[in-house]
Formats: sequence, structure tokens, C-alpha cells
Amino acid sequence: MTSLLVLNGPNLNLLGQRQPEVYGNTSLADVEASCLAHGTKIGCSVTCRQSNHEGTLVDEIQAAKGTFDGIVLNAGAYTHTSIALMDAIASVQVPVVELHLSNVHAREPFRQKSFIAPVSIGLICGFGAHGYILALDAMKKHLDDAE
Amino acid sequence: MTSLLVLNGPNLNLLGQRQPEVYGNTSLADVEASCLAHGTKIGCSVTCRQSNHEGTLVDEIQAAKGTFDGIVLNAGAYTHTSIALMDAIASVQVPVVELHLSNVHAREPFRQKSFIAPVSIGLICGFGAHGYILALDAMKKHLDDAE
Amino acid sequence: MTSLLVLNGPNLNLLGQRQPEVYGNTSLADVEASCLAHGTKIGCSVTCRQSNHEGTLVDEIQAAKGTFDGIVLNAGAYTHTSIALMDAIASVQVPVVELHLSNVHAREPFRQKSFIAPVSIGLICGFGAHGYILALDAMKKHLDDAE
Amino acid sequence: MTSLLVLNGPNLNLLGQRQPEVYGNTSLADVEASCLAHGTKIGCSVTCRQSNHEGTLVDEIQAAKGTFDGIVLNAGAYTHTSIALMDAIASVQVPVVELHLSNVHAREPFRQKSFIAPVSIGLICGFGAHGYILALDAMKKHLDDAE
Amino acid sequence: MTSLLVLNGPNLNLLGQRQPEVYGNTSLADVEASCLAHGTKIGCSVTCRQSNHEGTLVDEIQAAKGTFDGIVLNAGAYTHTSIALMDAIASVQVPVVELHLSNVHAREPFRQKSFIAPVSIGLICGFGAHGYILALDAMKKHLDDAE
Amino acid sequence: MTSLLVLNGPNLNLLGQRQPEVYGNTSLADVEASCLAHGTKIGCSVTCRQSNHEGTLVDEIQAAKGTFDGIVLNAGAYTHTSIALMDAIASVQVPVVELHLSNVHAREPFRQKSFIAPVSIGLICGFGAHGYILALDAMKKHLDDAE
Amino acid sequence: MTSLLVLNGPNLNLLGQRQPEVYGNTSLADVEASCLAHGTKIGCSVTCRQSNHEGTLVDEIQAAKGTFDGIVLNAGAYTHTSIALMDAIASVQVPVVELHLSNVHAREPFRQKSFIAPVSIGLICGFGAHGYILALDAMKKHLDDAE
Amino acid sequence: MTSLLVLNGPNLNLLGQRQPEVYGNTSLADVEASCLAHGTKIGCSVTCRQSNHEGTLVDEIQAAKGTFDGIVLNAGAYTHTSIALMDAIASVQVPVVELHLSNVHAREPFRQKSFIAPVSIGLICGFGAHGYILALDAMKKHLDDAE
Amino acid sequence: MTSLLVLNGPNLNLLGQRQPEVYGNTSLADVEASCLAHGTKIGCSVTCRQSNHEGTLVDEIQAAKGTFDGIVLNAGAYTHTSIALMDAIASVQVPVVELHLSNVHAREPFRQKSFIAPVSIGLICGFGAHGYILALDAMKKHLDDAE
Amino acid sequence: MTSLLVLNGPNLNLLGQRQPEVYGNTSLADVEASCLAHGTKIGCSVTCRQSNHEGTLVDEIQAAKGTFDGIVLNAGAYTHTSIALMDAIASVQVPVVELHLSNVHAREPFRQKSFIAPVSIGLICGFGAHGYILALDAMKKHLDDAE
Amino acid sequence: MTSLLVLNGPNLNLLGQRQPEVYGNTSLADVEASCLAHGTKIGCSVTCRQSNHEGTLVDEIQAAKGTFDGIVLNAGAYTHTSIALMDAIASVQVPVVELHLSNVHAREPFRQKSFIAPVSIGLICGFGAHGYILALDAMKKHLDDAE
Amino acid sequence: MTSLLVLNGPNLNLLGQRQPEVYGNTSLADVEASCLAHGTKIGCSVTCRQSNHEGTLVDEIQAAKGTFDGIVLNAGAYTHTSIALMDAIASVQVPVVELHLSNVHAREPFRQKSFIAPVSIGLICGFGAHGYILALDAMKKHLDDAE
Repeated sequence: MTSLLVLNGPNLNLLGQRQPEVYGNTSLADVEASCLAHGTKIGCSVTCRQSNHEGTLVDEIQAAKGTFDGIVLNAGAYTHTSIALMDAIASVQVPVVELHLSNVHAREPFRQKSFIAPVSIGLICGFGAHGYILALDAMKKHLDDAE
Repeated sequence: MTSLLVLNGPNLNLLGQRQPEVYGNTSLADVEASCLAHGTKIGCSVTCRQSNHEGTLVDEIQAAKGTFDGIVLNAGAYTHTSIALMDAIASVQVPVVELHLSNVHAREPFRQKSFIAPVSIGLICGFGAHGYILALDAMKKHLDDAE
Repeated sequence: MTSLLVLNGPNLNLLGQRQPEVYGNTSLADVEASCLAHGTKIGCSVTCRQSNHEGTLVDEIQAAKGTFDGIVLNAGAYTHTSIALMDAIASVQVPVVELHLSNVHAREPFRQKSFIAPVSIGLICGFGAHGYILALDAMKKHLDDAE
Repeated sequence: MTSLLVLNGPNLNLLGQRQPEVYGNTSLADVEASCLAHGTKIGCSVTCRQSNHEGTLVDEIQAAKGTFDGIVLNAGAYTHTSIALMDAIASVQVPVVELHLSNVHAREPFRQKSFIAPVSIGLICGFGAHGYILALDAMKKHLDDAE
Repeated sequence: MTSLLVLNGPNLNLLGQRQPEVYGNTSLADVEASCLAHGTKIGCSVTCRQSNHEGTLVDEIQAAKGTFDGIVLNAGAYTHTSIALMDAIASVQVPVVELHLSNVHAREPFRQKSFIAPVSIGLICGFGAHGYILALDAMKKHLDDAE
Repeated sequence: MTSLLVLNGPNLNLLGQRQPEVYGNTSLADVEASCLAHGTKIGCSVTCRQSNHEGTLVDEIQAAKGTFDGIVLNAGAYTHTSIALMDAIASVQVPVVELHLSNVHAREPFRQKSFIAPVSIGLICGFGAHGYILALDAMKKHLDDAE
Repeated sequence: MTSLLVLNGPNLNLLGQRQPEVYGNTSLADVEASCLAHGTKIGCSVTCRQSNHEGTLVDEIQAAKGTFDGIVLNAGAYTHTSIALMDAIASVQVPVVELHLSNVHAREPFRQKSFIAPVSIGLICGFGAHGYILALDAMKKHLDDAE
Repeated sequence: MTSLLVLNGPNLNLLGQRQPEVYGNTSLADVEASCLAHGTKIGCSVTCRQSNHEGTLVDEIQAAKGTFDGIVLNAGAYTHTSIALMDAIASVQVPVVELHLSNVHAREPFRQKSFIAPVSIGLICGFGAHGYILALDAMKKHLDDAE
Repeated sequence: MTSLLVLNGPNLNLLGQRQPEVYGNTSLADVEASCLAHGTKIGCSVTCRQSNHEGTLVDEIQAAKGTFDGIVLNAGAYTHTSIALMDAIASVQVPVVELHLSNVHAREPFRQKSFIAPVSIGLICGFGAHGYILALDAMKKHLDDAE
Repeated sequence: MTSLLVLNGPNLNLLGQRQPEVYGNTSLADVEASCLAHGTKIGCSVTCRQSNHEGTLVDEIQAAKGTFDGIVLNAGAYTHTSIALMDAIASVQVPVVELHLSNVHAREPFRQKSFIAPVSIGLICGFGAHGYILALDAMKKHLDDAE
Repeated sequence: MTSLLVLNGPNLNLLGQRQPEVYGNTSLADVEASCLAHGTKIGCSVTCRQSNHEGTLVDEIQAAKGTFDGIVLNAGAYTHTSIALMDAIASVQVPVVELHLSNVHAREPFRQKSFIAPVSIGLICGFGAHGYILALDAMKKHLDDAE
Repeated sequence: MTSLLVLNGPNLNLLGQRQPEVYGNTSLADVEASCLAHGTKIGCSVTCRQSNHEGTLVDEIQAAKGTFDGIVLNAGAYTHTSIALMDAIASVQVPVVELHLSNVHAREPFRQKSFIAPVSIGLICGFGAHGYILALDAMKKHLDDAE
């Protein structure tokens, strides 16, 4: 059975409370629940983690090797500044889908730089909480095609 | 019934023949057929158009107003240079999902600038032909939520 | 009798429907009618054309040589990207007045670059539909002075 | 009766003597006389001022509030460097038309930056002394529409 | 027999009339005639096309695949702005020689950027109409060497 | 009673020992003691925290919501690099005063960029340890005015 | 007795009338009155001056030498453009506190450059009229410490 | 007899008192006296003026036309920011020698931009008060050669 | 006896498994063992630490003061983004040798910026695991010379 | 008889041995032999020189005046850095054709800057050793036309 | 026996006399003597050369092919400007270790650009004369590993 | 007796023949003769050297130490590119006056960057051959003051 990690970065624990006009009203617990449910539907076991710490996210990505078949990563603000996350992904070679709730390419210029993109298979952004479902589908298809 | 336009820009008529290591082996006809089939499955009528001409794409977007509920737009190379397409989308206010076959944000710097992003609801890129299916799903969900 | 071409570029056919808070409520037909009426008043025959296609605008400017004494050009979005239009104007040497409905120099940075300016006699922007009347007056005066 | 201020900045007192190939042969006195005459024709009382001092121009703009209905401003070289003039215009909220004798957007790059544009209703440039007449017409129309 | 396409872009139909101090006095018809004559001399059948439309040039390049052994391309102003032309050349993999009448690298900075260069075998510029003859020779030699 | 958090970032635990010519001789314990004393004087309960970890500072800011009425934040080096801190402040909407011991705008260019500024009410820098007293006063006044 | 100059630059004479959503409702007279009152409270004689003229501000700073012990300077728009003010401060070596009513570092990029910062002891911005009180306190403390 | 103006800009009235390690110990009065003395020696009548006001310097340059044969201009800080001074010099066409006491090209980057250079015959900098003598010699030679 | 800290940053725990074509096949344990052995040989006691957390690395550097005579620091990806590490090194004034396994100056531009360089005595990069031995030698020599 | 200099710059003496995948397998001796042979064919006497020294190339260009009718110059790496070569060509006014073996405009950005282009009649690049033949033809035609 | 070239560039002949606070007190003769001695110790024959001429350094690198197994190169100021040296190294494919006495990455920005880095195996800088010993060790190890 | 070196760089041997509209009609021999004559007049022995080779100029500057009291340096095109000359001057600490015939700060941007300025006492440019006389005067005065 395909095993996927949904990894959320800084401030995503505040989902639903935080700037709802940008990020929507769904809480992180709701998002994680719908990821698990959707995982069941498409034949994947889904595990969810969140941390505000860049180092912890690096640890999680390193630990994913051999444990998960793919990672759906919403690295939040670290997307735009963390070469360490980029290096971690390049090191473990577990496939990653980059995800953002908002359409980051339509926002401030500093949110249009991604250190995750060069080491990801693809990017989904702007669709709010539904983006996680799309990302799981995209990852599943990618893994099925790679077999 | 929801009516969607899948609009492809320059050089996408060569899909399958063109740099398959970047863009995959599926032809445009195959992509359009799978869009129609997936449309049926999710209750949408899907129309597909392609042009190599910027002006024709502007015409198509203008004509979409009142005819289509949403547009899945792969503007190809014009994504990065066409303010005219940007203005057309802003003018008609039909929702647009931006799509690219390859992960443009992991390629040359000039492919990381999008004039489509500021007038789109979201972006899907890097998943090859499967990206069209994800984009149709994303658009359908967006329209259902907006009702 | 002085013969003038009023040439409008991409998305200006949507005038009146398109972002009225930026571009006003007057339709292109209304603008063209008032240009013709004002032409009669100042002793000029006025012809109006519009196209969404850069190549067609290049064709129109080339064809203007020997047919029109001056061009009032609202090149829309192509103002900011088209070296081809710039070269066409330089090639035919028919005098051009650059026109914009909105004050482009108070908008996004990419609208503050004009490839038309270096080959125009002058620029009028920010006065909405009334700008066409001012541009016709400016062109008439320019042609009268040059005699 | 509509009351308008025509305010000229540094070196415009030299008009007619100064680089006539760029700025033309008309003197400032002639320009001001034709502004007054045209004002009478379009039902506006026109007052003309000129100063080489940035601070004096700021004072004039502040004093315009409650005295004039609109300002036609040729800020000369201060256009490109004066945030103080920009702030003064924003403070008094008297409508301003930005004017230049030459087509500044076809000249040196440092003349293509305007601190006046973001606080003006529109811009007229490149038509020499005739630009003042066009600017008065544009301002009159703007004030009539706003009533 | 080697079959070559000489493809000219925007404003090159005006050759001979257009800024002769930059582009020379030869007309496009003359250039094309001398290309055909030189083709005969070096054992190549030469076909000549010109368009002011970016989309039409993209179409021509796509259609060249299987029809022509090489393309001599003077993309005019689109050289500096068209990623679509670049992508078309990369897609069809017909060898291209980039050509300009004037020495574009000695002109305005915006003419020193070429989207054609990365997908061309080489560049000839600055030799006026004679450049076409040099380009045909260069292409012929390239094709002979590749056999 | 008003409740305030004084939050110090990386290397501020070394205050007094660290480059005293830049940061002064007062230790962090001294600073915190004088903050508490001054809090008592102006009717505020003051809590002090310090961490060298970006993630911990994000956690602290998130936890401040509902606990503190305002934050005096000296984010140290993270001021210039942390979009995560910026997002955390925007998420919790507790008012923040940005503080630096040295006059960062008179130092290296990379210290003149602040991701904290766009989400702060104001900035105090250059006054050494006394800046904390000024910041508490500024925050108190801000909260009193907002009532 | 400590003698302080509060020096205000261009457009600050309009305080209270000018963009109250940015600069607040207090008039310059009110601000100056509260500066005098606060001066009395902290044992300082306070003098207030304002000018819209860069040259006059330079004169004031030069004249401050030997007359005032410190300057609280709100140079307004000249902050961002005046090397002359910077040189004047460096020449007289009277300590200066830089002050802005709004949080300039959260506004337009051109307001984030300060020629005053490199020659000031510190900066206070974003606290509206209350910033003057904080600046007087900061200056008083600075002068007391320097004794 | 040749008539020369030595025109000094902002903060040069402080010469001798101001940062002597950069600008030397000679006062402006001393400099002006030695200019007059040297003028006598080389057969020139020398007039000296100084102002801290940009507008006054513009006035002086305009007034120089017909009165002085040449100007030795130390525009101080306005050298780097004043397009108005540049335009004034271009307008009057009295020859100007640009002068600085310090070697501005070896100092901060913002002192390496000169708006005076493009309208001056030449530049002398870095030789302290002696630079004025060199500049008078240079101007005298220039005027003698031009006869 | 000289006491040295070898401090490794993010992703260096993966050494040997991670992109061996860039970073080589030696594991971190092997590197640390050879550092200890070489330390013994040159008369130094060597301690090795690694962390993926920026804050932990800041803590380690602060704690090094008084414990270690020098630090060999491979800050990995934080080299290019961490002002906090830079400040920590400047605060403790324990000498640091900057080390990288790969020749970072021959890689992506973002790896050519180092915040560690301005606070290090020197840099060694490109020699793989052997670089640690060179760095220990360099530090030992530096400390011996400083005695 | 027309007399031409073929001048090669740094590292071109290594032709054939040096990176053959970029520069081909022909040696410099072969290239020079084919230049002489082709010269005979088109009625030109050809002289070949090579130097690794920028100063020697400057000397050669200066010495060409009065000796050669034209120069085919492959300045190698000095193309991108040598203002001295540019000045030498401008000084002697012998016509120069710029030549490169590889298509420099398709390589690293620093190879896309040419100081030779502004003083050359034209440019040929990307055709390997055959480029010299094309350059001789181009120069011959240029000299014939100029007669 | 391994044969190594130690090649020093411009101004390194002045070592010991030149800015000793930056470059130390050791003369070039001393450095070369210690290189020879260390070579003997590690089983390498070492040859030392120095030139102030860029072209001579290019010649030396070309001549190294077949004569030396490796080069320790301190290209001095040419490091930052010489594409010709870069090309020479790329052409001969003798391994190069880049060396600087001072920590160039902690100095002026123009010293942080290296054209040597992309064609070197590694870099050692900041360790003064001792850097040569480290570089010889690094090169020896590199050659031993490559066997 | 004061001993001065007048050192001229690339292409200055062509003086009088080279672009006389920029550099004047005087030959280098004339310039050198007038330098010797003026030297006699002001009590200095003057020696003149010229080279087109950067390395030779570096050698000359190094050799000047102990031989000459000062250098008047016209480094020509190397002014703008040669860090090696800059380093040579810094190494020998013989005072240097930077000289240019034309007003380089009024020419192309690449001529406005000087690597000589930061290591020179001052700069004279724009006065043609007379600049050498001014430079000798400036150097003499500098040396007299330093005694």
C-alpha cells in the first residue's frame, strides 16, 4: 500500500484562524482529516505532520526516506528562504509535490521565489484546502506511472 | 450543466512530438480526448481549442464570456510575455486555472515570470498530461463552492 | 483634407464592459463615433480600426503610409512589449500620438515601459475617452505646424 | 467660474532661449498669455506662477487648496526627484494634470521616472507649448465631469 | 537536393523603404531573388516567406519539419521578445541560422537579447543583404558536415 | 491590567558580552529587570522571553494571542530573513513594536531589510537598552488610544 | 538646561489636514505645544521650526551648532532624497534623532531609503504624534548618558 | 578681461569647521580670497557666491549668462541629486568646470553619480582647496583656446 | 592542549548517502573519526557536533566560548542565509574556519553568498572529506601563530 | 590586391586540443592554412597572427593601420572584458569583422557582452572553423562595396 | 614523482612589502622556498613562477600541460576579471587549486567574483603564506585519490 | 629635486591620430615634451612612459617605488577594468593623480567606473592635453604640502 506524508510548515497550525480571507476557514485538523479520508479512497495510507521549526522539517524529510513513498509539502514561509529544505529533499530523493493554499505567484514578489520548486515534481497552489486532495491525486498518479 | 473551455497556446499542437523528455509522449488529441472523458465523469461539458497566435487566444478568452463557466489555460510561452492575455482575462472575469505540463518554476528564469498568475485562481504545473485532469477537478470544485 | 487613423489595440473592443472603474463606461463604438464627430469639427477625416493581433496592428501601421497623415495609437498591452510595433512606426514615418485611457505611469511598473514613446511625437494618458479628442487636437496642431 | 493654476518649475523661465531644438521658441510670457487667452475661451480664470525653488513649488501647491479648482503642473526637473512635491499634491487633493514640453518618455532614463504621476489624473507630454492648451482642456473636462 | 527556408519576420517586407541608413536600399524581393539565385549556385532549392505575425512564424517553423532541411531566420523584432518562436524551433529540431541585417549587438540594449540564439547553430549580423548569402553558405556547410 | 511580552531573538542572550561597542554593556538580565520595573511604573505586567530558535519565536508569537495585549519584539538577525515570523505576526494580530539596539538603518545593507516592519505598528532603533523603555511607552500609548 | 530643536520638514505644516488616515488628526501647532509641555516636564527647553525648503532646513541645522544640544528631525520627504541634509548633520555634529509619523519602512520602497539614518543616533517611526514625545525622551537620555 | 564665477553649494559655507579630515582646514573666506588673488595673477576678475538652496544655485547659473565667461562649480551634495542644476547649465551654455574638494569617486557609491558631469567641460576633485586654483587655470586655458 | 570543535550543519548527517557525486562516499561518522585521529596527530583534542537546526548551531557557537580554542564550521545551507550564525560568531570571537565539501563558488549563484566569510579567518572548499583535515591544520597553525 | 589580417586572441593557439566538443577538432594551423587558401580564391592576401596577450593584440591592431584593409578578429575571452581592444579598433578605423567559433550568445551570460561589437561592422559566430571563410567573404564584400 | 607548479599572478612579487596588514610579512622568495621544502616532504617536485602579465599566465597554464600534474594558482587580481585564464585552465585540463592569501570573500564585493572557481577543484583562502602548504597537501591528496 | 613619472596606458601612443574629436590633435610626443618643459618650470624632473600592456604598467608602478615621488597616471581603458593596477598602486604607496583627456564621467557608463580612483589622491579629466600640466601642478602641491 502506498504510504504518503503530508508535511506542513510554519503557521499552518493556525489554519482557519489565520487571515481567513487569504487562507480560508478550514482548520488544520479538518484538512488532515480530509487527507486521511481521501487517502483511504485512493488506496494510500496518509500520515500528517506540522512544525514551525525549519530544522524539524529537515529532520522529517530525512526520516521520510524508506518510510514514505512520497511527500506533499506545504513548507509555508520556509519555501522562499530555506536552502536547507531544498538540500534535504535533494538528499533523500523521495518525490515531493509542492503545495500552497494561496496563489503565491499572484502575491508579494518575495513569495514568488521557491527553493522547493527545483527539487519537486510539480506545484499546486491557489485552491485552498482542496489543493491537498489534488496534490494527493497528483502524487498517487506519479507513483503509479513510475512503477 | 457546467461548461468549461480548455485553451492551449503556442506549440502545444506539437505535444507528443515536441521534446518528449520535457513534455511527455501524449499527443494533444489524446489530452483533449481525456479532458472530454473526464468532463463527462464530473458532469462538465468540455470544449478544447488551440492556437499559436496571441491575438487568437485573446479573442477566445473574450468570446468565453457568457459561453463558458471557467477556463483551463495553458498559455505556453505567452504566459511569460503577454500582458494582452492578462488584460483579456481581467476584462472578462471568467475564472481561469493556469496550467503547465512541466514544472516551469524549476526551469529557466524567464519561465518563472507569469502574467497569467495575477488574474488566475490557481496554478497546477509539473504533472504532464495528468495536470489537465487535476485542473478540471480544481475548476469544478471552485465553481461548486462559488454557487 | 487631413486624414487621420485612430488605431486601437488588444482588449479595447471591450471598452465599457471591461473594468469600468479603470477604463470608464463608454463603449468603443461611442469613442469612435465621437472621434468622427470631432474630426468633422476640426476639419479631419477620421478612420477607426481595432485589432487584438499584434501582426495586424503592424500591418495597419505599414498600410497607413501614403493613406493617413497621422495616427492616434492606443496600442493597449502591446505598448509595453512590442518592438515590432516600434519598428513599424519607425519604418513608415507617419507621425504617431501615443494614447492611453488610464494614467499608465501611475499603475504597475510593467505598464511604465513604452516601446511606442521613442517613436511618437507625444503622449496623452489618464483622461479616459476624452483623451482621444485631445489626441486628435494635438495631432491636427502638429500637422498644421509642420506645413 | 472655474479657477486654474498653471505652475511651472525650474528653468521654465528660460523658455524660448533654452535648447530651442528640445523646448521650442516660445517664451514663458507667450505661453502664459496663451493660457490666459485660452482660459477665457473655455470659461476659466487662469493664474500663472513659476519658480526655480522646490520649496516654493511646495508652498504654491499647499496654497492652492481652497483657491484653485485644478493645477496644470510642469514640475520640470523636480518631476523626477521630488517626493516633497508628490506629498504636497497628495495632501491638498486639488486635481493635477502633469505636463511636459518634450516627450520625456523618449529621453534619458532618469526623465522616465515621475513622482508626480501617482498623484495626477493624467499626463500630457511632447506637444511643446500647445501642451498647455491641451492640459487646460483636459482639466476643464475633468472638473465638468466631476460636478 | 537540399531544401532551405528563408523566413523573414515583422517589417522586413518594407526592406529598402525602411530606414535605409540602418537596413540598406535593397528590397525584400531583391533579397529573395538573390537567395534563390545563390541557392541554385550551391545546389539548394530555396523557398522564401515573410510575415508580420508571430503566430504565423510559429506555424511556418512547425510546418518546416519534414519539408525543409534548414531555416535561415531573420525574426526581426520578435527575436528579442518571442519565447514562442524559441519553443517552436526547439520543438521541430530543424537547424536554424539566426540572421540580422544590422549589427544588433551594437544597437539598443533590448536588441542584444535573443531568444533565438539558444536554439540556433549560429548567428550572422551586420552585413546587410549580403548576410543572407553568408547564411545560406553557412547552413549548406553545416548540413554537408552533418551527413 | 495591560499585559506585555518582551520577546528577544538570536544572540540577545549574550547582551553585554557581545560587541559592546555596538550593543552596549548592559546584560539581558538587566534589560529584562528594567522592563519589569518600567512596566510596574506604567501599569503593565511585563513578561520576558528569549530564544535563538526561529521556530520557538514563531511558537511564542502564536501563543501570545489571548495572553498578551502587545509584543515588543527584538527579532535580532531573523528580522532580516524570516518570512515565518512575519506570517506569525500577521496571523495572530497582536500589535507588535519592532525594536533594535543599534541603528540598523545605518549599518550593512542586509540589515536594512525588515520582514517585521510591514506587520508592526512602529519601529524604535539605535537607543541601546533604553529603547526597550521607549518601546514599552509606545505600546502602552498605542493600546490606550485603541481603547 | 538642555536645549532641543524640533525641526519639521516639507508638508508637516499641513499635519491634521493631510491624509489623516496616514498621519493622524493632530495639527502641527498641537504637536509643537505638546513638545514644549513635555520639554518642561523633562527639564528641556524646546524650540520648534518647520520649513518646506531643503535649503532652509540645511541652514537651520548649521545654525543649531552652539545653540541646541540636540535635534529631533522629521525631514519628511527630504529624508529619502537629501544628501545635503545628511552632509549638514555630519558637519555640525549636533546629535540627531530621526523621526517619522508613519512607519515608513512599511510603505513604498522609496520611503525605505534614508540619508538621515547614517548620521543619526537612532530612529523612531510609526507612532504618530506620540513619536515626538518618545524622541525627546530618547534624546534627553542620550545627552544625559553622554555627560 | 575674463570674468569668472566661483559658485559653491550646500554646506561649503562651513569649510574649515566641517569634517576637517575630509575637507581640510581652510575656511570658505580663505578659499575665496585665494581665488581672487589667483584671478588677478592670471588676468581674470573672479566673483564668489555660495548658497545652501538648490533653487538659488539654479538662479545664479541662469543669471551667469551674459555676465560671466565661465563658472567653477562646486555643487556639493546637489551634484548627485539635482537634475534642475544640470538643466540650468544646459540652458545657459556658459562653460562649467566641476569641482570637489574630496575625491568623490573614492567615497560612497551615491557620490559617484554626477548630474553635473554631462554638462561640464571637465572635472577636478581630490585636491582640497588647491583644486579651486587648478579649476581657474583650467577654465582660463579653455576660454583662451576657444577664442 | 588545544581544543577544537568541528561543527556540521543541516543535512551533513546524511554524508555518504546524499548525492555522492557531489559530496562523496564517506559517512559523517568516518569524517568525525578521521578528525579525531588527525587531532591526536597534531596535538589537539577534537569534539564533533552536528545539527539540522539553525538555533542549535547558534547555541553551540555561543557555548564554544571558553570551551574551545577554535571552530571548524561547515554550516551547510545556513552558510548562505543565516545572519544569526554570523552574529553568533562575531559575538563569541572564537576563531572560525569556514569549510565546504564541494566547491560552492563553482555551483549555483545562491551558494556563492556566505554570511560566514566576513567573520571567519579563512575558507577551504572543494576537497571533500579531506577538507576537514586541511581545516584542522589551518586552525592549528593559526592558533600557534597567535600565541 | 586586398590585404587582410586574421587576428586570433587568447587560447586559440590550442584549437583542436581545447574542449573539442565546443571548439571542434581543427588546429589553428589548419584554420590559418584554409584562410590563406580561401584568400587566394577571393583575391586577397591573408596574414594570420595569434597572441595570448591583450597588449600584443592592441599593438597588432594599431600596426594594422596602413598595412591591412580589414581585420577578421576572434578576440576570444578578451571580447568580453577588453575596453582597450575596443579603443584600439576605434582609433585605427580599419574595418573589423567580429568572429567566434562557438555561438557565444547561447552560452554563459558573461560571454554575451561584447566590447568589440560597437566598433565592428558585423558578427559571425557558431559555425566553427568555417566561420573564418564566411568572415573573409563578408569582409571582401564590405570592402568591394565601399570602393 | 608528482610534479607541481605554484603559479603566482600580479603584485605577488611584492609580497612582504605590500600592505602587510592584509598580506603578511613573508616575501615571495620565502613562500617559494617553503613550497619547495614542503614538496620534498610530501614527495612532490615543486616549480614556482610569477608574472604580472595576464598573457604570460595564460602561456604558463598552456605550457603546464604534459609538464605538471597539478597547479596551485594564486591569480591575484586577475582572478576577478580574467575569462582568458578561465578558458586556459578549461583547455589544458590540468587540475588547479585556487589560492588567496587573504579571505577574499570577506573583502570588497568585486573580489568575491572568481572566474577561476568554475574550473578549479577547490579553493583555499585567508590563511596567508600557510595557505600554499595547505594547497600543496590538497593537490597531492587529489592526485593520489585520482590514481 | 622632485621626481615625477607620467605614465600613459593603452592607445595613448596614438594620441593626435585617434578620434581627434574626442582626444584632440596633440601627439603623445608633444604632450611629453610639454610635461618635461613644465616640470623644469616647477622644479621637477619628469619621466614619461607608455605601454599598451597591462602587465607592463603594473611593472612600471612597482618599479616607481623609491625612484619617483609621484605618478601622473592616465591608465586609459585599463582604468575601468584593472584590479591589478589598483592593487599595484596600493602596494607601492607612491601618490597617484588619475588623469583622463576626455570627461569620462560624461561618456558611456562603463567609463564611469574607475578602479584607480580609490587609490588616487585626486582626479583631473576633460581638459585634453592641458590636463597633464594641471596634474603636474596638483602633484607638486600635494608633495610640497606633505613635507
